[in-house]
Amino acid sequence: MGYRYEIRFSGAGGQGLILISIILAEAVGIYEGKFVSQTQSYGAEAWGGSSKAEVIISDEEIDYPEVMNLDLLLAMNQKSCDAYYRDLRQGGILIVDSTFVHQVPTPRAFSIPFTHIAREELKQEKSANIVALGALTQLISIVSPKSIEAAVLARVPKGTEKMNRAALKAGIRAARQAKKARKEIEIVPEISEEELRDAY
Amino acid sequence: MGYRYEIRFSGAGGQGLILISIILAEAVGIYEGKFVSQTQSYGAEAWGGSSKAEVIISDEEIDYPEVMNLDLLLAMNQKSCDAYYRDLRQGGILIVDSTFVHQVPTPRAFSIPFTHIAREELKQEKSANIVALGALTQLISIVSPKSIEAAVLARVPKGTEKMNRAALKAGIRAARQAKKARKEIEIVPEISEEELRDAY
Repeated sequence: MGYRYEIRFSGAGGQGLILISIILAEAVGIYEGKFVSQTQSYGAEAWGGSSKAEVIISDEEIDYPEVMNLDLLLAMNQKSCDAYYRDLRQGGILIVDSTFVHQVPTPRAFSIPFTHIAREELKQEKSANIVALGALTQLISIVSPKSIEAAVLARVPKGTEKMNRAALKAGIRAARQAKKARKEIEIVPEISEEELRDAY
Repeated sequence: MGYRYEIRFSGAGGQGLILISIILAEAVGIYEGKFVSQTQSYGAEAWGGSSKAEVIISDEEIDYPEVMNLDLLLAMNQKSCDAYYRDLRQGGILIVDSTFVHQVPTPRAFSIPFTHIAREELKQEKSANIVALGALTQLISIVSPKSIEAAVLARVPKGTEKMNRAALKAGIRAARQAKKARKEIEIVPEISEEELRDAY
């Protein structure tokens, strides 16, 4: 039985989501030899300046390159988080750019300030997409940081390699912190009704 | 009844086919308000270094973003022409880069030396994809040169606008010549068996 993993990157136009979806598809398809399709749609339903790009990964040829059961949603702004959270399957992974997403619909989301990191650490706000891509490698096991790095360096303009490597590293660091923070939250034991009564 | 128009760009990796498919999708989806999906697939079936990108255009929402009945094939090298010509529907349009495609499977193809034009007229071989995009606007009526120009300028790196405008124009000129040449061929009446006998 084959697997199928569905990813959607969403946010505002200009946040570079199509680019990172292509980089992810190339990393997985070319460097890791899996089957991948990568799609974006435009149309009358699109709200002004929004962007959505999807990557579907499988170990079998992909017949239907459309999201059916979303495994991972990256939302780089509030509007896309609100619009697409409902498409995420139960137990699916939500990653938000906490620079712009302040109303997070689940405490289980990974909230990472991608744009803030890009602005402060890299002095290049536009690299927030590559920071997010670096983070992704720590939050799912479908693609290695090494494949992502190779695919990034093959796609970005000459002269920006060093900056893009730094962006990936910043994303990896931030995701590790976010995972650690979530674990710390999770080990706080739930308080039972009984304990709650006893506490007063 | 809605229409659906299916386009595939194919060639070698590095010929910039994904980029022009995204530009076409944005031109049609953003500047002309139609429904568009744009897809590329990678996988074990891909032969070394080849590239394929598809654009589907409709006046209705696109449920199935996969080619079913190919209306237009752009083949930028021989391998992709050989591999995909059979997917073209009867009466579909074949456009080849005659710099690299020497065995053209139908006399009704538009053979235009995109790479040669980019190399000689623009001194920038890599712009062959934008030359092809310019040509496209003359060979199908689905997108205006104006929308294509706006979408190109929104996507290409700063400082390359002038060169990309020149590439579009070169493509438009070449396509007009190719159309004219094809008309001239077509008005040569077919010689009947009888006439052929009389000619000797």
